[in-house]
Amino acid sequence: MKPPGSTLALEAVLGIERPILGAPMARVAGARLAAAVSGCGALGFIGGGYGDLDWIDAELSALDPSSIGVGLITWRLDEEPAVLDHVVAAGPRAVWLSYGDPTPHLETIHAAGLVAVCQVLDLDSAVAARHAGADVIVVQGSEAGGHGRPGRGLLTLLPAVVDQISDIPVVAAGGIATGRQLAACWQLGAAGIALGTRLYATHEAADSTAAKRRLVELRGDDTMHSTVFDRVRGPRWPEGYTGRAATNSFVREWHGAVDDLEADLARQRDRYAAGVAADDLDVRVLWAGEAVDLIDDVQPAAAVIREIHGEAADL
Amino acid sequence: MKPPGSTLALEAVLGIERPILGAPMARVAGARLAAAVSGCGALGFIGGGYGDLDWIDAELSALDPSSIGVGLITWRLDEEPAVLDHVVAAGPRAVWLSYGDPTPHLETIHAAGLVAVCQVLDLDSAVAARHAGADVIVVQGSEAGGHGRPGRGLLTLLPAVVDQISDIPVVAAGGIATGRQLAACWQLGAAGIALGTRLYATHEAADSTAAKRRLVELRGDDTMHSTVFDRVRGPRWPEGYTGRAATNSFVREWHGAVDDLEADLARQRDRYAAGVAADDLDVRVLWAGEAVDLIDDVQPAAAVIREIHGEAADL
Repeated sequence: MKPPGSTLALEAVLGIERPILGAPMARVAGARLAAAVSGCGALGFIGGGYGDLDWIDAELSALDPSSIGVGLITWRLDEEPAVLDHVVAAGPRAVWLSYGDPTPHLETIHAAGLVAVCQVLDLDSAVAARHAGADVIVVQGSEAGGHGRPGRGLLTLLPAVVDQISDIPVVAAGGIATGRQLAACWQLGAAGIALGTRLYATHEAADSTAAKRRLVELRGDDTMHSTVFDRVRGPRWPEGYTGRAATNSFVREWHGAVDDLEADLARQRDRYAAGVAADDLDVRVLWAGEAVDLIDDVQPAAAVIREIHGEAADL
Repeated sequence: MKPPGSTLALEAVLGIERPILGAPMARVAGARLAAAVSGCGALGFIGGGYGDLDWIDAELSALDPSSIGVGLITWRLDEEPAVLDHVVAAGPRAVWLSYGDPTPHLETIHAAGLVAVCQVLDLDSAVAARHAGADVIVVQGSEAGGHGRPGRGLLTLLPAVVDQISDIPVVAAGGIATGRQLAACWQLGAAGIALGTRLYATHEAADSTAAKRRLVELRGDDTMHSTVFDRVRGPRWPEGYTGRAATNSFVREWHGAVDDLEADLARQRDRYAAGVAADDLDVRVLWAGEAVDLIDDVQPAAAVIREIHGEAADL
């Protein structure tokens, strides 16, 4: 724990040169993307998601674990704490915990000398995570793609969190894809930013070319929060979480009729699995944040990060 | 219409010294608040709401109409266009249209030599309003209090709109209460900001002391979007609009059960009216944006505006 009042730069806490984190997008942020992000002076995270250790081990074996971080879903660790022990033993530079109370898991991370990054969706959780010993707070607005919660914009939530937490770095996440947004987040008191959707639309992200092209075409108004994809994919998420994804036929069909979806679940799961197998973007989920409005091309991750950082520094 | 490519400053278009608009909060922004806002170099708007001409005339008679603007709800003007004729004839400096397609009404405003301010909630509406001849675009994120729509944060929607509209001023609205947010909005390309909830918590706003104190106590996470208050108060809003208000017992009771509310409407309307009469904040609506996180006191409006503008200019 840092002594109160001594604000530490994000770069110093994480040993990086650019105050930018690559969000641990489950399965999409693999070794290739994380290595590209870390390779240009930011910090890449592997998206460990629900904790599939075979996948995580395969990705970690493709790089130097100490050069990147690993992200995990906190409420899954409550069910399987051994996943965290395994990840920590692999020696990443940091562990990023999202969606749940990080308190029970911070000791495991700190005992191994790793940095604990805690992602939060509201003010109370930010203060609680700081109190529990988080080294970095990532505050995520509802602009973000993937899992989160509707209802809080980063333009208010970020300064509200910064007002409460002044002694450790607060990182802004959700909807960020440009240097002027990084500059705006600096104005609001952030120590840096996390990039999710913007890095999804890079060569190194682990998804199809069609999926990445769709991100470029999509607009923010064509994305929405829903529980539909979690219901059909499983596992079931705790109450209160939704995910922002591209608005496609599947989510449009079931969003207002989740009871009907649950009643027909076996059949819809087959249909969904077929959509995944065919990479049918009108069926399968494409997690996407409002940042898609500001994404015009699929680029190498390092070019994205250099451009954003350079533009913000110029401003 | 301004020639494309010639960006005009908000101050020049509206004849003001500070790039800040007082949002036309229906009934809450009366002559007293609008005059205080205009009196310190910004531009105050009277909240004409649904178009009650007796109320509007009474407020306009208390000041020089050319020193302020009037806000009206666009979809109501579609039903009663004479309201706009009446307001325009009174000679305000500007008319602010919200919630609906402004196209049919812009000629009336321009024929009288007034400035047309068009508030939008998404990218398509921004481009359409510009094309129709809006002089100023106000882009409102879902952080805002009062009517709007969930789903779009200002941190992404604002730069997306600015990317499309470069020849007239774009004003940022929703959740803004501090100078660092004004500075952040400048970074994102805004020509200025609109203040709603922050001005609600001022001496000059037309509501009870208890209501204003509640705004100071409230936190952004204690506000939510719902249609409950519109259903019980009437008139019925078009599909797609919600309003962000303080989460109180009444909205908590009915938000997930609007069909039950509709089935018991007569009784609940009586109950609601009694809550209004008693200024019972656990029943009556208190429109409130996420900005409440950043509001620590009830102040004079001029002090609020000077502080925000001064802080932003320093940054």
